[in-house]
Amino acid sequence: MKALRNVGRLFSPGEAVRAGADVLIEGDRVVAVVPAGEGRADEEFDCEGGLLTPGLIDAHTHPVYLRARLEEVSRRAGGASYSQIAGEGGGIQATVRETRAASALQLEQSTRSRLSFWIEQGTTTVEAKTGYWLEEQGELSAVRLLAGLSSDAALPRLVVTFLGAHDLPPESMGDRAAYVEAVCRWCPAAKSAGAEFCDVFCDRGAFTVEESERILLAARAAGLGLRLHADELALTGGARLGARLRASSADHLLQIGEEEMRALAAAGTVATLCPVTALTMGQLPPARRLLEQGVTLALGTDHNPGTSGTTSMSLIVYLAVMEFKLDVEQALSAATAGGARSLLLADRGGVSRGQLADLVLWDADHEGAFAWEPGLRARRVWRGGQLAASDG
Amino acid sequence: MKALRNVGRLFSPGEAVRAGADVLIEGDRVVAVVPAGEGRADEEFDCEGGLLTPGLIDAHTHPVYLRARLEEVSRRAGGASYSQIAGEGGGIQATVRETRAASALQLEQSTRSRLSFWIEQGTTTVEAKTGYWLEEQGELSAVRLLAGLSSDAALPRLVVTFLGAHDLPPESMGDRAAYVEAVCRWCPAAKSAGAEFCDVFCDRGAFTVEESERILLAARAAGLGLRLHADELALTGGARLGARLRASSADHLLQIGEEEMRALAAAGTVATLCPVTALTMGQLPPARRLLEQGVTLALGTDHNPGTSGTTSMSLIVYLAVMEFKLDVEQALSAATAGGARSLLLADRGGVSRGQLADLVLWDADHEGAFAWEPGLRARRVWRGGQLAASDG
Repeated sequence: MKALRNVGRLFSPGEAVRAGADVLIEGDRVVAVVPAGEGRADEEFDCEGGLLTPGLIDAHTHPVYLRARLEEVSRRAGGASYSQIAGEGGGIQATVRETRAASALQLEQSTRSRLSFWIEQGTTTVEAKTGYWLEEQGELSAVRLLAGLSSDAALPRLVVTFLGAHDLPPESMGDRAAYVEAVCRWCPAAKSAGAEFCDVFCDRGAFTVEESERILLAARAAGLGLRLHADELALTGGARLGARLRASSADHLLQIGEEEMRALAAAGTVATLCPVTALTMGQLPPARRLLEQGVTLALGTDHNPGTSGTTSMSLIVYLAVMEFKLDVEQALSAATAGGARSLLLADRGGVSRGQLADLVLWDADHEGAFAWEPGLRARRVWRGGQLAASDG
Repeated sequence: MKALRNVGRLFSPGEAVRAGADVLIEGDRVVAVVPAGEGRADEEFDCEGGLLTPGLIDAHTHPVYLRARLEEVSRRAGGASYSQIAGEGGGIQATVRETRAASALQLEQSTRSRLSFWIEQGTTTVEAKTGYWLEEQGELSAVRLLAGLSSDAALPRLVVTFLGAHDLPPESMGDRAAYVEAVCRWCPAAKSAGAEFCDVFCDRGAFTVEESERILLAARAAGLGLRLHADELALTGGARLGARLRASSADHLLQIGEEEMRALAAAGTVATLCPVTALTMGQLPPARRLLEQGVTLALGTDHNPGTSGTTSMSLIVYLAVMEFKLDVEQALSAATAGGARSLLLADRGGVSRGQLADLVLWDADHEGAFAWEPGLRARRVWRGGQLAASDG
């Protein structure tokens, strides 16, 4: 038995923040939260009055690539449009060319070193998408790479999402139907290789609602959970599709209206919101209204090589408070229990008996720090009860 | 002679970004920027193709206090108003009570440890205000503390600003005139103790334009440079006053209009903008319009115990791009040369012969990284040619 003693404040979603508590851990699980000093333990750690939360959960990332497209980022900051850059061969297609040409070793090294930033900053579970090959063997190699890295105790746990439908590949020559059918065919192999979800970029300029439905139905038949990029650039019906299919998550939702919100609530589909993307796009999702309608929120960095370099879910919590006007507990709940729900994981996202002992001690003694310091620092991070990161 | 070799990209304000260069340093100064491999040196450092910039300059901070008001931050995120909290004895007054009660040693330790975060993250000069005592001896002790810390080579260089006019002290019992006269009287002693500027919080609910003018004139007579918090909460005339007095800097400017911008441009007063504060207030300053009108921009974290916990100027550059729609070079220029100008410092803010060798090697090979990763990491930071921080 291990004890985290002298926790100043303990946040666990759905409960009042607890002042003064100890957390008892056996193996990789929390066995009890007890009043300060209670319970016997062989090993004790003094939290010195600090704030403890469940490990944060990043519910939307694209982490398998070689290098960020920084020159393009700089041009966009200077006013160039995404469509102009895509028209010149930039955007997702530029990353696709680069990942296809990269060696497996290069990709593993860059992905591994990148993922270590998440856990150092207090994120213990990361949803991780493929989508930078757009051909069968490459997409499956990305699934296998991610599934393999998930068991590395020095990295966050990964939940792998197959995103063959991220864009059309260059060799499709505009034959959309053929590529959609191909993605449908790859779903069973993606599942066998370790994917747990299938995602589709359903939007204007990407896949239509009909194409997305076809792919998601094939994914469901293959045993994959469903999520989708929905109504980010335009209201094309992605959220309604997600609700109709009872997808686990509909993501971004910058353009949705009341009707779509009610549909998500009725279907139990989680709304995964990405504050950095909202900032980049200059358009806010209706976060508070979603909560009022009864939709569960999750949060994601949307980390990707073109628009979002962050690996810090504490920064995302900060931005969710500032941009979306969530209160601190709402934002933290979205970054923990909400993420777990969007990933269909019942074993994490809270601090209570039977949950995984994925825990973070923050460099603060009050949860208000998340709304004061953008990117609050993690002092100690435990993954399954084992110390996985420490600030020195 | 020391050489930083193999700089991949060198940013220096007012010049095109230079691809491939070496920087030669003698003592604490840059002596030349030369083509790769040129120049002889006794000591060489390999920048491995990374991005080098001048040390960033934070032109607006309030770093002398004991603890952040995190419970209050949490309540504000939940909807409580600043005036409600101030009415209950919170806000600046709560910090004033705490700093007055703290020991000099406690304050030195917390201020020192806080300031180390700035330099680790690539900021080599920090404007630092007093303002949490609001009585003579305390304010002067804060000036002396900051002036003393400025020579610590492990911390950023500090430029001390006397901000006795941050708020009315509790013992003033509303006798505004008496406190304004007192602040005027303290200016010469603040100058002798090491302050270089005087600042006034000129706004609705704080000091009026007339009170601010009286204090700033006394400050000028005492040999202090002038800056002011202006037109942040309401358009009360702070920016116009700043322009009329040819202040070095007018800060925040969330509420100003065209006429105020023209006045600042004509006076040569720098506009110091604080993106975190703009985010907190939900109100943007007219940053691009200020540039168009010919006003020089500087940037600041506005670090303070109530609303802004950030110590990262690379995050501020990111937010200036995202919120203010500056391009990367405009934002970096504001965070270097603009800050130097607002502080009347001709010896820093660029990388060229004779400038201080305050330099940062970033964890990126292109300046676009500032607009991709919020809070880009510094790999190495030199203060006056000496390595002051390293990422491990």
